[in-house]
Amino acid sequence: MASQVAGVKNTNEDENAHKDLGFCGRVKNKVVEFPMKLKKLGRDDPRRIVHSLKVGLAVLLVSLLYYFDPLYDGLGATAMWAVLTVVVVFEFSVGATLGRGLNRILATFLAGSLGFGVHHLANLSGEKGHPILIGLFVFILAASVTFFRFFPRIKARYDYGLLIFILTFCMISVSGYRDEEILEMAHKRASTILIGAFTAVSVCVFICPVWAGDDLHNSVATNIEKLGSFLEGFGSECFKISCKGGESNKALLKGYCSVLNSKQSEESQVNFARWEPRHGRFRFRHPWKHYLKIGSLTRQCAYRIDTLNGYINSEIQTPLNIHSTKVQELCMKISSESSKALKELALAMKTMTRPTTATAHITKSRIAANSLKSFLKSPGLGGDIHLLDIIPAVTVASLLTDVVAYAEQIEKSIQELASLSHVQFKSAEPKTEQEQTRLHKHGIVHPCAATDGPHHVITIVQPSLKEIENKG
Amino acid sequence: MASQVAGVKNTNEDENAHKDLGFCGRVKNKVVEFPMKLKKLGRDDPRRIVHSLKVGLAVLLVSLLYYFDPLYDGLGATAMWAVLTVVVVFEFSVGATLGRGLNRILATFLAGSLGFGVHHLANLSGEKGHPILIGLFVFILAASVTFFRFFPRIKARYDYGLLIFILTFCMISVSGYRDEEILEMAHKRASTILIGAFTAVSVCVFICPVWAGDDLHNSVATNIEKLGSFLEGFGSECFKISCKGGESNKALLKGYCSVLNSKQSEESQVNFARWEPRHGRFRFRHPWKHYLKIGSLTRQCAYRIDTLNGYINSEIQTPLNIHSTKVQELCMKISSESSKALKELALAMKTMTRPTTATAHITKSRIAANSLKSFLKSPGLGGDIHLLDIIPAVTVASLLTDVVAYAEQIEKSIQELASLSHVQFKSAEPKTEQEQTRLHKHGIVHPCAATDGPHHVITIVQPSLKEIENKG
Repeated sequence: MASQVAGVKNTNEDENAHKDLGFCGRVKNKVVEFPMKLKKLGRDDPRRIVHSLKVGLAVLLVSLLYYFDPLYDGLGATAMWAVLTVVVVFEFSVGATLGRGLNRILATFLAGSLGFGVHHLANLSGEKGHPILIGLFVFILAASVTFFRFFPRIKARYDYGLLIFILTFCMISVSGYRDEEILEMAHKRASTILIGAFTAVSVCVFICPVWAGDDLHNSVATNIEKLGSFLEGFGSECFKISCKGGESNKALLKGYCSVLNSKQSEESQVNFARWEPRHGRFRFRHPWKHYLKIGSLTRQCAYRIDTLNGYINSEIQTPLNIHSTKVQELCMKISSESSKALKELALAMKTMTRPTTATAHITKSRIAANSLKSFLKSPGLGGDIHLLDIIPAVTVASLLTDVVAYAEQIEKSIQELASLSHVQFKSAEPKTEQEQTRLHKHGIVHPCAATDGPHHVITIVQPSLKEIENKG
Repeated sequence: MASQVAGVKNTNEDENAHKDLGFCGRVKNKVVEFPMKLKKLGRDDPRRIVHSLKVGLAVLLVSLLYYFDPLYDGLGATAMWAVLTVVVVFEFSVGATLGRGLNRILATFLAGSLGFGVHHLANLSGEKGHPILIGLFVFILAASVTFFRFFPRIKARYDYGLLIFILTFCMISVSGYRDEEILEMAHKRASTILIGAFTAVSVCVFICPVWAGDDLHNSVATNIEKLGSFLEGFGSECFKISCKGGESNKALLKGYCSVLNSKQSEESQVNFARWEPRHGRFRFRHPWKHYLKIGSLTRQCAYRIDTLNGYINSEIQTPLNIHSTKVQELCMKISSESSKALKELALAMKTMTRPTTATAHITKSRIAANSLKSFLKSPGLGGDIHLLDIIPAVTVASLLTDVVAYAEQIEKSIQELASLSHVQFKSAEPKTEQEQTRLHKHGIVHPCAATDGPHHVITIVQPSLKEIENKG
């Protein structure tokens, strides 16, 4: 805990240091830092640069409407709606862009028809009744649709559509009072929005597409891997066993922090992914919602790990050199075995292969946890050591047991995902020795040195593996 | 943990039950449930209904532009930009609406001027060079501004502004190729956007305003209170002591769950609150960012509490009836004292009074934690009991000690907030007996029965208290 509080303090100190510089100094600092930050932003995820160029291209393409006379003559000044649509609809991932595009098109069509109907109805009520009726409709519709936007489920998928619905309805029904050519306006608006949305979606899908589904799949797997990395370093760090790269080890131990607050980004990615068509390893109705379950279990496990992390730097930690090295040994065993299990699960998920030895690792850590229990039960132990000395170790052991239970749950839910997504998850173990040799020759299977026992991991995408299997 | 996993299972079962109904059954179910859900949505937060009516009113007001001839003659068809601005800018809280409104106005002005400049520059390069130069500018600007949107800090506050910047720039510079009256178009667009933004902000601020700052302040305090409520019920639940209202108690214990994932909503509320002017108890530059620190500590504490919660329903829990009731007694003391401390801190924050007895409660829980330590140290204990029997209790005690440490940190950060916000946090203890009697007579001070020792909580807003003090 001390270290986490220190983190907050550091931020405050940084801010105070900035304040000491005075206004000019701060501005100068920011100007100097800006290009560095830009560079880092691009290096962290080069897809950001590609996305920016794609947006530029899409806007350029759609602005050609203004330059080609045949197109401009048909659409006139409403061509700007196409530019507007591209800018507003184009998002980072294909799913988000498709979702916004479809929302915009559907909402425009529905609201346009409704607005047209209301306009006709109002026309029947005479010149005096017209504005009153229109005003009433606009008020009721805007208020009720705004209220619907509070529904969590509707908000998640159709929020933008509802906004556009209010917008278009008001524009069509209200402007109808003045504009006699309401049908033509509606027609032009619809066609420019179609052109804009089509341009945005095409550029987004056909030039280096970023699939929200891929991102979700990878981020859920990476989160599991981060927990594994923490547990890998935890044993030696907790029991102060010297190991190489002390500082980098600490950085590894901090990796899990981003898992704690991953809920909202996962939820939005699931919503985006559900808009996406079949792509790469994922079919159209891939069980995206199941990732929320895996993500939730991963976070629950991360909360335990955050508690464990408190014991590495806390004051209580000093007397962890308990007289018996047996407890220490068993804790390290639990930690390293569950680390291996989680890391293999993450890898299996990333490569979409069935985890082969994860169950074995989990069983081993379960056995270690049971031996720890029976060791603490042994009648000779009570008299030997002070209870106080052993408290932190007991707490750590107890938390590690929790972590093992979560690792088991995560394994189960990944297997559920594999069975829900039918064909995608393949066995990682080739059946015969002959096949193994062939896979080695193709450079596809690399023996995994970091884990115990003979097992192999396949690191290629599905189709190629399928081909090889078919040929065999 | 078991219960949390069960939660996930329940959701799955619900879904399966829905699937069994068939398509028609599901649609019927949804139609029947819809009005109930609508009602619940409104009852949970009646401000949602008010907000929806406000949006309806604002759209109605701005559509009057179409009905009054003098206004319509000046603005013409561009009056629809005002409708668009109202719909897009109007958000739930004042801060969000102000932020979007200011972003839209500023971005429109800046991009409009830049677009106008570029249009002139392109005009100088002749008829052939014009489209090429404009195209180049549009591409570069759209790509670079899109890239800036990836900056987390810029994204948090100016994302919408950057979007509108690209939009307006493209519209002005591209349409300029055709439209000779570019200045007039820019002028009309700017004035309609001003009208729309002004209407939205006025309705939002002057009719039942929802301040993001108030919401943030209350939600941070409520989160602390939820942790207190958990700890209040935890002792009896953990040691299976019978108490009234078993089920409602369990519901209380689940209240903390929403705290775990509160980070993103707090961050966005801070960003909204920073746009807000002085209101109610908060001055203009209220230290909103400090709430992030309190929120972060609260979440850290909630992670420990989530771990603690795992011990209430887990299988390990059964042998918690350890032979010594002393450990149990001390754990309950720690739990109840830190619960009182957290609840008082939450109340003090809500009423913006200095917490009077929170420190005393924290000290008491600290003392209880220390007695627990020394009790476990006592030489006679080791031989009496099996170590295994005591593991869960020891773990619980250890986690509770962590919770106490976090409660201390939360108290410190609330005191920091009080000192940062200068005048706002007042002492809750009237100085003389005479004053107390007067406050009682005014119905302002209610003796707080739930906490130990003589202390009082003031539940009114600051100005009235100030008046009374000044009069005294």
